[in-house]
Amino acid sequence: MKVRILVTFKDSVLDPQGQTVMNALHTLGYESVRDVRQGKVFEIEFAGLSREKAERLVPEMADRVLTNPIIETFSWQIVEP
Amino acid sequence: MKVRILVTFKDSVLDPQGQTVMNALHTLGYESVRDVRQGKVFEIEFAGLSREKAERLVPEMADRVLTNPIIETFSWQIVEP
Repeated sequence: MKVRILVTFKDSVLDPQGQTVMNALHTLGYESVRDVRQGKVFEIEFAGLSREKAERLVPEMADRVLTNPIIETFSWQIVEP
Repeated sequence: MKVRILVTFKDSVLDPQGQTVMNALHTLGYESVRDVRQGKVFEIEFAGLSREKAERLVPEMADRVLTNPIIETFSWQIVEP
């Protein structure tokens, strides 16, 4: 099973990296860009994991290892059963 | 319109950061993890952009600014029309 986890800053947290990318895009003439937020993506491959177990394990892993729960939030989905 | 762009290393490129995360997960007892690949995600908000224009602009921006086409690849989708 393959799972994709997206980790992004909470909306209330400043994202200087995203701002820098936005400035670069504006400089290159992409004026229609209003906002850029940058985050991390993890694609994790599991061996022999049931959907039920994934629904317990993945949020736990994301919380303990992949995110800083104070400033970041995550979402996840199964991309390959 | 809001667009999400995922940037990941090409399969042939080593991902030491992903390997480190995998080792951390194994140490914590998540033995069912087989592989971890880490990448970047950009959520970009556009003002007044048609779907057709997005389909031209977004891959161009990803190629010029957001990825290193030698070692990285990207995929994108519209998350809010």
